[in-house]
Amino acid sequence: MDYTKYIDEVCSGAKKASRAAASMSISRKIELLKNMADRLEKNSGQVVKENLKDLVEAEKNGLSAAMVDRLRLTPERISGMAASIREIAAQDDPVGRIEGMTVRPSGIRVGRMRVPVGVVAVIYESRPNVTTDIAALCIKSGNAAILRGGKEAIHTNTALYSVISESLKEDGADTGTVVLITKTDRELLTSLLKRSDSIDIVIPRGGPGLIQRVTEESTIPVIKHDKGLCSVFVDSSASPEMAEKIAVNSKAQRPGVCNAAETLLVHREYSEKASLFQALIIKGVELRGCAEACSVLPGSIKEASPEDYDTEFLGLVMAVRIVGGIDEAMDHISKHGSGHSEAIVTENYSAAERFLREVDSAAVFVNASTRFHDGGEFGLGAEVGISTQKLHARGAMGAEGLTTLKYVVYGNGEVR
Amino acid sequence: MDYTKYIDEVCSGAKKASRAAASMSISRKIELLKNMADRLEKNSGQVVKENLKDLVEAEKNGLSAAMVDRLRLTPERISGMAASIREIAAQDDPVGRIEGMTVRPSGIRVGRMRVPVGVVAVIYESRPNVTTDIAALCIKSGNAAILRGGKEAIHTNTALYSVISESLKEDGADTGTVVLITKTDRELLTSLLKRSDSIDIVIPRGGPGLIQRVTEESTIPVIKHDKGLCSVFVDSSASPEMAEKIAVNSKAQRPGVCNAAETLLVHREYSEKASLFQALIIKGVELRGCAEACSVLPGSIKEASPEDYDTEFLGLVMAVRIVGGIDEAMDHISKHGSGHSEAIVTENYSAAERFLREVDSAAVFVNASTRFHDGGEFGLGAEVGISTQKLHARGAMGAEGLTTLKYVVYGNGEVR
Repeated sequence: MDYTKYIDEVCSGAKKASRAAASMSISRKIELLKNMADRLEKNSGQVVKENLKDLVEAEKNGLSAAMVDRLRLTPERISGMAASIREIAAQDDPVGRIEGMTVRPSGIRVGRMRVPVGVVAVIYESRPNVTTDIAALCIKSGNAAILRGGKEAIHTNTALYSVISESLKEDGADTGTVVLITKTDRELLTSLLKRSDSIDIVIPRGGPGLIQRVTEESTIPVIKHDKGLCSVFVDSSASPEMAEKIAVNSKAQRPGVCNAAETLLVHREYSEKASLFQALIIKGVELRGCAEACSVLPGSIKEASPEDYDTEFLGLVMAVRIVGGIDEAMDHISKHGSGHSEAIVTENYSAAERFLREVDSAAVFVNASTRFHDGGEFGLGAEVGISTQKLHARGAMGAEGLTTLKYVVYGNGEVR
Repeated sequence: MDYTKYIDEVCSGAKKASRAAASMSISRKIELLKNMADRLEKNSGQVVKENLKDLVEAEKNGLSAAMVDRLRLTPERISGMAASIREIAAQDDPVGRIEGMTVRPSGIRVGRMRVPVGVVAVIYESRPNVTTDIAALCIKSGNAAILRGGKEAIHTNTALYSVISESLKEDGADTGTVVLITKTDRELLTSLLKRSDSIDIVIPRGGPGLIQRVTEESTIPVIKHDKGLCSVFVDSSASPEMAEKIAVNSKAQRPGVCNAAETLLVHREYSEKASLFQALIIKGVELRGCAEACSVLPGSIKEASPEDYDTEFLGLVMAVRIVGGIDEAMDHISKHGSGHSEAIVTENYSAAERFLREVDSAAVFVNASTRFHDGGEFGLGAEVGISTQKLHARGAMGAEGLTTLKYVVYGNGEVR
């Protein structure tokens, strides 16, 4: 099918709406978001009812239990989504802030003003809370949003979108400020990803297939939210108590998320290896180690295959390797890590500073759990996601990540 | 031809070199750059000799006089290139700076550290000073660089590259820190642009064809340096003296560059239209106006075609339009501008503030010439270029634009 006309409408509508969105006052945005949260809770029953249609469909199509769980909405989960919208409403507004104003020898005053990027397209799969979170973050940051969720959540997303568009209408805002694309054909997405004339940024959130496809097809700049293959390195000087606490927390506190650790690197001269490994095993973690690691607790550690060091287990499995020192640890991370979150446990000042400086990941931790890599924990409020690319927004990305800096120049008739 | 093996070598060499480059000390980088500048001047004769080969070739292939001039190197121009390297050496080093450190309720301290992006690929045409400027900026910002110049400058670039690689060798640095790709086939570029595993950022500098091709083929994030279709808006309240000075300077001081103005928008109620137009005509500018503009100086202003408002003249031609007010002016800019640089001349506070806030360009000026949009004038030192995209680096882009921010977390055993 030819979607040219439909996409033209969506794009020009969003572009038009983005200009008005950029100059919405702070208080009006707060009001709009609060009303949206209230409306969402009021319409909870309707949303749950539409969500059931998707769940029936999912059952029919044999989606995995984990996928079905991610898709399911309950009144409690909907209240959580409303709370998240309220939290976004309460955040600092990033738009209009001027940074680094200086006077130049010519007499002009130059600074950089934070402004919305314009039109944000988000391509996502299953988790329906993305629909309301992203809509709220885009409104907060003064952008227009084009949302394209997966077909497995189409009824749910449509119900959530009607909450969003009713709220926009009530406010008197352009309903093009947030658009949901309900057609889920492949070709439509392909055409959409070529519209760099109207769309300023594309954010894919989903599995590796989706991310790869968007990266390959898009002529619009992409902010990837890719997997997290995170490591904890226990240095020879580490406090054993801290090492155990941090390794266990990084791996086991919530193993299914991207900032959970998958690999444990241990300095050969760290003396408390056995109790470190035991602490993990007691928490139900299956360890897969190099030969040297296995020999620490014979029979209790499986031998690791080479792939284990490249696997995001997202469960209670951890790859273990004994290393000769910080350089070998950093080499391992550089080769096998995904540049998401890495931690060192050490009491050595130089090791801490080298690790912070040299490890090329979005977040680097000394003596703290990788699980802290999160917008809330870092003080950004709700997140767009955790970016695994280096440009524009790296790591936990909040409303500010949806803005950009433009130069503003105050002159008094200066010329060159 | 299959370049897989060659590109593998280039990419893995650059990736390896980038780790060492990232932790080079500030003083060593300064030393290396100063030596490079000295060596360039010492080898001036050799570079001019190689440049002549390219000029002979250009003559044979019938390159335009403007292109040939951009390609030509003289001892003076080479001294200018050396001066630019020294200027980059003297700039503030952006690497390692930590911004916005805060303590979170959990007890962790979170900040963002400026770090090199890693491997920078620059695809460019003709102007050979790009070779030394970009090499110096990449070294300063702790990156490895892959340079791919055009075939019309291949002898010149090779000679310049030997200066760069000799300087790296003398310093004891990895010669993979800067690599020049001397094969200029199309297929090679296509393969290179898919290597997002090794290259972190691609910067195309050249004509629209090159930029479009790189954007379409690259799976690596691209920072575009596109055309400048810049405007000056003279508001009804403008000081006539300032309006004339700024319009003339923006258009005529150096009309061939991207921050020169192409369009003049004049408020209908601005009373000194005739002398404004005369000031431009006296400087040799051909005005092409709407009917209303033409009637101001009958016979002296050509009628504009619709395309004139979408043309980057890069010469002494300017499109003129009379508008009803600031909204019409901003609509015109939004529709016809390239988001590069726009100026308003006004004495009205609200008009100035609205223009600064609402015009969606990389640099927005009140009562100053668009010609100030320049790394040197803004205090960044030498530029990578002027980015016309919104993400990561917008507008004048210096060494800092080749860095990124990663989160650094100082803990004391904290877990979630």
